[in-house]
Amino acid sequence: MIPEEIRAFVAQVSKLPSIGPRQATRLAFYIAQQGKAAITDLRDAIDRLLELKNCEQCFRISKTINGLCDICANPSRNQGIIAVVEKETDILSLENTRKFTGRYLVLGELSKDAVLTGLQKLRLNHLKSFIQQRLAGMATEIIIALNPTTYGDLDASLVAEELKPLTKKISRLGRGLPTGGEIEFADDETLGSALDQRK
Amino acid sequence: MIPEEIRAFVAQVSKLPSIGPRQATRLAFYIAQQGKAAITDLRDAIDRLLELKNCEQCFRISKTINGLCDICANPSRNQGIIAVVEKETDILSLENTRKFTGRYLVLGELSKDAVLTGLQKLRLNHLKSFIQQRLAGMATEIIIALNPTTYGDLDASLVAEELKPLTKKISRLGRGLPTGGEIEFADDETLGSALDQRK
Repeated sequence: MIPEEIRAFVAQVSKLPSIGPRQATRLAFYIAQQGKAAITDLRDAIDRLLELKNCEQCFRISKTINGLCDICANPSRNQGIIAVVEKETDILSLENTRKFTGRYLVLGELSKDAVLTGLQKLRLNHLKSFIQQRLAGMATEIIIALNPTTYGDLDASLVAEELKPLTKKISRLGRGLPTGGEIEFADDETLGSALDQRK
Repeated sequence: MIPEEIRAFVAQVSKLPSIGPRQATRLAFYIAQQGKAAITDLRDAIDRLLELKNCEQCFRISKTINGLCDICANPSRNQGIIAVVEKETDILSLENTRKFTGRYLVLGELSKDAVLTGLQKLRLNHLKSFIQQRLAGMATEIIIALNPTTYGDLDASLVAEELKPLTKKISRLGRGLPTGGEIEFADDETLGSALDQRK
């Protein structure tokens, strides 16, 4: 009774975070109803995501040139100051404050059981090699910009433990952020003060 | 700073119902991170929606054969009993009760200002012609199965007004349904009694 095409769509789309099978089913019928132009526009928009890559230095999903994203390739960004974030949308929020001129490291989604995943360890090791080779073994500052949630705090301690020997200063975003909240949802001003008051 | 590919995706996806630009942005980065196989699977799933069409009789989105969906083409369904619904997912819920053996008419999304849209009028006119030509001017029963919400009730009156001269019986789903709720979220049993107690 449900067309196989709808089932296939629901199977793919309900894998995405925060979309359940019911919402996926409604989306499937809605999109199918939109007709050819709308469906191909959507398909093409997804197709274009294939052109994006992980930056080889900060790992954020980006249009890379010679392997680097526009932030890592920007000579006016301070390579010795590194903000460690969970995800790309956190970078967007931090960039909107216009208060940070260093570079980033994207850790990838934090696991809720407060252990670093294999991928996160690889990325931290990549940062360590970068500090060894390009910063003579010592970063100016590392800002651990993870969500101030219970497991964000635990992960932040794990990351701090790893990086402490390799930086003059290690900081976290000031607790201007409401505890339990998410970086992505903070307004620019709150997030700006959090950058100012880092300790 | 945000890649054009991400912006293009967000522009398309935030047009969809119940997905805002912020969720679309997170989805974009998430999908881009999944890599080639996952992205092409998703693209192909959307592409396949192109194979679906509106049934020429009930207008539901479906895999049609000779213009008809599997319900309309099924000779054991009673063509003289017609349930008027808003959307395809409402049909899925009604079919799950296994209590309805008639056919459907999909009206399409109800407008919140309780007037019938041009498209809805066209579909009702199509049903009227069907009743004239195929049922000798008189349906056995029309069940108006619209959500029991304020504007659903108003639209139901408008639809009843249009169809009353063309049917022996006109009914609405029994108010076993919680008023203000939605058909899609009703459990099978509640929805089954609502079919039993239609008046």
